[in-house]
Amino acid sequence: MTHNTNKLKFKSLGIHTQHEHFVYMRKDCHLCYSEGFEALTRICISHEKKTIVASLNVLSSHLLTPGEISLSESAIKALGVQENDILEISHLAPIESISYIRSKIYGNELNANELESIINDIVLGNLSNIHLSAFITACAGDRLNIKEVTALTRAMIKTGEQINWQSGIVADKHCIGGLPGNRTTPIIVAIISSFNILTPKTSSRAITSPAGTVDTMEVITDVNLTLDQIKSVINKEYGCIVSGNTAKLSPADDILIRVEKALDIDSEGQLVASVLSKKIAAGSNHVIIDIPVGKTAKIRNEKAAYKLKTLLEDVAKTIGLKLKVIITDGSQPIGRGIGPALEARDVLAILRNETNDSLIGLKEKSLRLAGALLELTGKVNTHDGYNSAKKVLESGKALEKFRAICEAQGGFKEPKLAKYKHEIRAKNNGTITQINNRKLALLAKLAGAPDNKSSGIDFLSPLGKQVKIGDILYIIYAEAKGELMYALDYYDKQNGIITIE
Amino acid sequence: MTHNTNKLKFKSLGIHTQHEHFVYMRKDCHLCYSEGFEALTRICISHEKKTIVASLNVLSSHLLTPGEISLSESAIKALGVQENDILEISHLAPIESISYIRSKIYGNELNANELESIINDIVLGNLSNIHLSAFITACAGDRLNIKEVTALTRAMIKTGEQINWQSGIVADKHCIGGLPGNRTTPIIVAIISSFNILTPKTSSRAITSPAGTVDTMEVITDVNLTLDQIKSVINKEYGCIVSGNTAKLSPADDILIRVEKALDIDSEGQLVASVLSKKIAAGSNHVIIDIPVGKTAKIRNEKAAYKLKTLLEDVAKTIGLKLKVIITDGSQPIGRGIGPALEARDVLAILRNETNDSLIGLKEKSLRLAGALLELTGKVNTHDGYNSAKKVLESGKALEKFRAICEAQGGFKEPKLAKYKHEIRAKNNGTITQINNRKLALLAKLAGAPDNKSSGIDFLSPLGKQVKIGDILYIIYAEAKGELMYALDYYDKQNGIITIE
Repeated sequence: MTHNTNKLKFKSLGIHTQHEHFVYMRKDCHLCYSEGFEALTRICISHEKKTIVASLNVLSSHLLTPGEISLSESAIKALGVQENDILEISHLAPIESISYIRSKIYGNELNANELESIINDIVLGNLSNIHLSAFITACAGDRLNIKEVTALTRAMIKTGEQINWQSGIVADKHCIGGLPGNRTTPIIVAIISSFNILTPKTSSRAITSPAGTVDTMEVITDVNLTLDQIKSVINKEYGCIVSGNTAKLSPADDILIRVEKALDIDSEGQLVASVLSKKIAAGSNHVIIDIPVGKTAKIRNEKAAYKLKTLLEDVAKTIGLKLKVIITDGSQPIGRGIGPALEARDVLAILRNETNDSLIGLKEKSLRLAGALLELTGKVNTHDGYNSAKKVLESGKALEKFRAICEAQGGFKEPKLAKYKHEIRAKNNGTITQINNRKLALLAKLAGAPDNKSSGIDFLSPLGKQVKIGDILYIIYAEAKGELMYALDYYDKQNGIITIE
Repeated sequence: MTHNTNKLKFKSLGIHTQHEHFVYMRKDCHLCYSEGFEALTRICISHEKKTIVASLNVLSSHLLTPGEISLSESAIKALGVQENDILEISHLAPIESISYIRSKIYGNELNANELESIINDIVLGNLSNIHLSAFITACAGDRLNIKEVTALTRAMIKTGEQINWQSGIVADKHCIGGLPGNRTTPIIVAIISSFNILTPKTSSRAITSPAGTVDTMEVITDVNLTLDQIKSVINKEYGCIVSGNTAKLSPADDILIRVEKALDIDSEGQLVASVLSKKIAAGSNHVIIDIPVGKTAKIRNEKAAYKLKTLLEDVAKTIGLKLKVIITDGSQPIGRGIGPALEARDVLAILRNETNDSLIGLKEKSLRLAGALLELTGKVNTHDGYNSAKKVLESGKALEKFRAICEAQGGFKEPKLAKYKHEIRAKNNGTITQINNRKLALLAKLAGAPDNKSSGIDFLSPLGKQVKIGDILYIIYAEAKGELMYALDYYDKQNGIITIE
């Protein structure tokens, strides 16, 4: 039987819908009608042996003539079609992985094959945001057991590329975010690679924060390197700080992260799978994980931190990763800058040993984590890590290494701060007793961070500081007046981002 | 400060995206840039004191000129805008109800205010499908306690219209679906209203099944009546069978149902809130609920059925609804027809007392439910319900009433069956021992039901029937050859929708 198809001519409309594929069809199109105008329908589109699944949007205008069809940009890329190509349309057969998601919604344990099927369909674009959101929600809290997290991690690794560094020790670090500033990574990579330990750091952009390591490093150097380019940097300098996205490591994670961002949640099990899959795909085998704990950090109390620590360590052990978790203070921003350029400025100040009081926290934390990583690799003896790291940093060797890495990645630029700024000042005398990290982060985001690199907040009021009326608490930076206004509008509506008592 | 806004001229593109509002902006638009091209962003759009929230799609084509903006059709309707209107765009402030959804994701109990805030935002269109899916998933299984289900029910009633019939007894029935055929409602309404008991039946279209009561009744008469029209039918005939959507009863439910359909799940707590809110909003106070139980029905075992029964009864009691749950056999289709016109044919055959063996199940079940409802209202004595219902049906009084209701709703039409059909025949001799209701329903849907009214399945092989090779098991009906082919393509890939042993 030759059935199940419908042919339509492709016309581009240039609509970007992110990772979810959309198909646009005329209201009077036969298949559009039979799928039901009222439904959130998903259909199959094929072209030259490739098939994708897309969500149907119906057109009642003349954007398409009869016989024409259009796709969102992600769908065009996935299907590899060009103007006037003939596409075949068909009904979507039931997707098996959706029944596994359903099973998880009802609280059942998923096996390795079922999780792999879900992750595969995510990478292929076969699941809509509705399915992704249900999967994330069904796995949230502690609804994935250790067997499932391990299987999820393996599935995420399997669906992407994997790097083999042909080297014994490959060091890495990761922070379970949620804390503004806190840009330790570039400092740690500079220190560790100074010891000729392989430190191929592949990071991500900000998920819900005003800056990720990639956003920050992009201010200083190139971060979008091909795998071959990354390898050449590593061969030369032992370390790098690049984007993990270009290397297609754990691509399912990149898609899930967008939906998690929209929900503003991190599922514990998926968090572990996300972190560990990225590390293993990047070829790392010795990893330090930093978990900041604080009332307005991502992890809010010690109990939750120790639970996450145990899960991370247990799964790491099962998949053969040497991992150490360090629980740190997450009660306030680490460093001064919040936002890519402001954080880049702090990183350079510490590497240049230009530190003042406001940067001691960031420096000490970087040294502590670098020290722990040095000890984990066995390159220095237990208890010698911190001092060894400090020596390399204060001697200027780490700065030299950092500059060399930047040059190898494509050149070095000094960060510049944004044109517009507004100082927030203390309204009463007293001591800083509380800082709402979440509100501070949101303020930086409204000011334009991380997309506007030089926007953000310069934070000058750490816990315990004595202030007087009129003292500057922090400075909001924005690239455009509009964004400064958005941020100030939000600030006006808050009743205390910083508490002075 | 006069900030937070951006002005753009509206141009319609005629894109239908269902209930989720979308906004289309050029890639080079300032706000589009600052919100982040990579994000699943939601922004605010205002016009003359009205504000809506919409998901951002970015255009890299020339569909819009600089300074122009477009909206999806649902957003255009919600905002009430016309070509060339000037719209104001602004960043979205954090939506409070999303934090309640997040709280539920992590397993916390929600209070009445929090649930009301979520339901309000759903009706206003402030939540994306990602949020709706997370909310549904977070509430799935038994993750809503009775207090929450009660509060959810009340919130759903509150956000829609409510009908007051100014009458003592208002009878209603509902079936927790999942069973093909099973079209008892029109028969029951005809019987009950013959007793001059108010039976204003507002039904819905199919969610995941090949036909809902509204889809079926639409074959015979008009179902899209205004509230005034419904009232006039009821004043005249005591009963009606109309669409609940036009009356805007429990509008949050209509939106949630679409997302549940995409996920193909029914959350128990939301199911109860959905059913009871619709009943109370419709002004009913005496309600029979039919829960079919079977391996491939929605409710798969007695234990789950009794759990649902208890929850329905407990919540009904709290909100002052007289309710009785009847658990019925859900192991096979009830009646012959599966699909709007085929089911309408069965309903008329029973009302006309043209019943043959294949319709005894549907007739008996209708009488049993009608009898129970008669007893619940107190109109007949306990144990007299079934016989009273039978007398009205077999005397032709119910048919007369049904015709009168149809005439009052706008006229009566005889159902017609689809042009294309294909007989599925037994491949071996034996007894029918198992029927996969889900696959049978999907087959009817692939053939075009419920949107193609006369498509579906005529089912001729109930459990226990002896068949020989070549006997017709069922007939697939389709309005177009393409759909018949889709259905047969699916049939070809199955290994046993019906088991003969």
